[in-house]
Amino acid sequence: MTKVDYKIYPIERLEEFSRRVFEHYEVPAEDAALAAEVLAMSDLRGIDSHGVGRLYSYSEMLENGRINPRPEIKILRQSPSTATVDGDNGLGLVVGPRANEIAMDKAEQVGTGWVSVSHTNHYGIAGYYPIRALERDMIGWSMTNTTKLVQPLWGGERMLGTNPIAIAFPGLEEPDVIIDLATSAVAYGKVEIARRKSEGIPDGWAIDANGVNTNDPQTMIDGGALTPLGSFRELGGHKGYCLAAMVDVLCCVLSGANWGPFAPPFTLRQQIPERSVGKGIGHFFGAMSIDAFIEVEEFKRQIDDWVRTMRATKPQPGSPGVLIPGDPEREAEVIRSKEGIPVVMTLVEELREISKRTGVAFD
Amino acid sequence: MTKVDYKIYPIERLEEFSRRVFEHYEVPAEDAALAAEVLAMSDLRGIDSHGVGRLYSYSEMLENGRINPRPEIKILRQSPSTATVDGDNGLGLVVGPRANEIAMDKAEQVGTGWVSVSHTNHYGIAGYYPIRALERDMIGWSMTNTTKLVQPLWGGERMLGTNPIAIAFPGLEEPDVIIDLATSAVAYGKVEIARRKSEGIPDGWAIDANGVNTNDPQTMIDGGALTPLGSFRELGGHKGYCLAAMVDVLCCVLSGANWGPFAPPFTLRQQIPERSVGKGIGHFFGAMSIDAFIEVEEFKRQIDDWVRTMRATKPQPGSPGVLIPGDPEREAEVIRSKEGIPVVMTLVEELREISKRTGVAFD
Repeated sequence: MTKVDYKIYPIERLEEFSRRVFEHYEVPAEDAALAAEVLAMSDLRGIDSHGVGRLYSYSEMLENGRINPRPEIKILRQSPSTATVDGDNGLGLVVGPRANEIAMDKAEQVGTGWVSVSHTNHYGIAGYYPIRALERDMIGWSMTNTTKLVQPLWGGERMLGTNPIAIAFPGLEEPDVIIDLATSAVAYGKVEIARRKSEGIPDGWAIDANGVNTNDPQTMIDGGALTPLGSFRELGGHKGYCLAAMVDVLCCVLSGANWGPFAPPFTLRQQIPERSVGKGIGHFFGAMSIDAFIEVEEFKRQIDDWVRTMRATKPQPGSPGVLIPGDPEREAEVIRSKEGIPVVMTLVEELREISKRTGVAFD
Repeated sequence: MTKVDYKIYPIERLEEFSRRVFEHYEVPAEDAALAAEVLAMSDLRGIDSHGVGRLYSYSEMLENGRINPRPEIKILRQSPSTATVDGDNGLGLVVGPRANEIAMDKAEQVGTGWVSVSHTNHYGIAGYYPIRALERDMIGWSMTNTTKLVQPLWGGERMLGTNPIAIAFPGLEEPDVIIDLATSAVAYGKVEIARRKSEGIPDGWAIDANGVNTNDPQTMIDGGALTPLGSFRELGGHKGYCLAAMVDVLCCVLSGANWGPFAPPFTLRQQIPERSVGKGIGHFFGAMSIDAFIEVEEFKRQIDDWVRTMRATKPQPGSPGVLIPGDPEREAEVIRSKEGIPVVMTLVEELREISKRTGVAFD
């Protein structure tokens, strides 16, 4: 056993730090609070890759003028149930929640609202957005494209992002069903962890720079690619590719953002694509008023029944049995809101560096 | 080589036969033509499992009063962009296209239309519906639940259907991008084919009745289950389960249909679930007017660019290189509309039996 290499912080502390760092970079107070809230939800829910762990990249991009701290978010076109939004190169953590709000407001008016967003940046966890919709008795959807990292099936190089899809359904007495999945077989973070531990990765996670299945995480990182969900043709890898394509088109082609391999990077050290086919990256949000379809309470009762039925599935031998989508994150949230967020020391160091650079107190 | 065990029929011949068989079972002429059209599209596009190959099951269900030939399709609730439809236990091949039409009409009015349908039956290929939307410069969506066949990840039994998702995007000079995928790792048909050939199946396709990964197709068929897309936890099997759950809720919980393991069967020989939680099975349709978001021509030009860019991906060694979603079906359609549909002799026999039973001429 190595000694514990993390420090515990209450979520309020991390959220406040993020907020003040954003403010330091001229993000207006209200927007800074919103952006910090999105990051905090990720840390609370145990998705360490998308919380305060990304503050360093955001701050670097702001410092270098690569993200606009004071965007004028514009509706380029709209209909009663749709809008196309230009995020003016703002933080995705601000543009995303605002566009999601537009979708929800439209849903209140005409039953559903659908918003495609261009000229935006990394928007945090996809699950944040449908969770907000739950508060309004709506089914929320969210998708985003991301920097290229994934092969289309039978391709030998990175052409698509990990392009996540999130959607959530409210329960009554049972917890909400919260789906949030990347359309790649695994997250890049898992390959990085294996590399750090000098461990191999299983078949079906990645290809190397020659397009060949690899068990060496370093060869994926050095110009290889992740596989789409399904991994191989035989196991349905074409389906993961199709889902990534769907997200790409809804977020980018529909809004006028950069799709596929042309998505701009999220960090300074990543290369900017040689070609631009639109503005920034793209998101897609949807909101559906449940009562436009069915009585809200009836819907929630059925969700409760669905949840109980799935939990009662005969478990696969040697497994923990069937989980409900969102279970792991909800469990993390219960623990972390009580006990605080364990921040690994390398990240603590990063936050201290941000503190030094910005003058915002930390630790 | 075994000798050729199929016979070639022009699609018009098969479509007419289906139409007249439906009419024999008191399906009104217009509905019968519609149902036959849905089946014919499947045969043309090379999806043999969902075309005239299913006519026997449909006719049996009609003959036994399990499907209502003359449904009164009702809108139970609606808003400007949504409707909840009761299919009155009609053929899914009729209820589906009518509900899809409602979605498209609403999209014309307020930008998008979303329809959740209960009390319906098997609706053919999911891809039929978005293809219809393309003709109106819309992005179409379609989903349906199906009889239980798939394990939720870590479950040891069938609890969900193969719950497909389809969506399509129009190109200008390049072909349309047509996505149509089941959320299981593979189709049941592939397991059946392996069984017939006495071949094994690969890891990750199925579990046996004890919930254990199996390579023997017979053990999947005898009370085992298919795996969700992603197959194992390590390869993202929880994601395939989440997608199946999403389809289940949008099609059934939202409409008041039977979700999960309670979906009624599509054939006489399958067991009716012990419990009912709604009416029939469920579908979900969406239609989005492209010009509610962006100029239609601009969208199509970008799709062309997307298609060309993906095709130009460096190919994975030993593979045919990247395909565009819909390529295999489009190629089948080109060949089959010219050369006819190869119908395997066992199916020819089935069609002859239907002919005998109904008096509708065949062969």
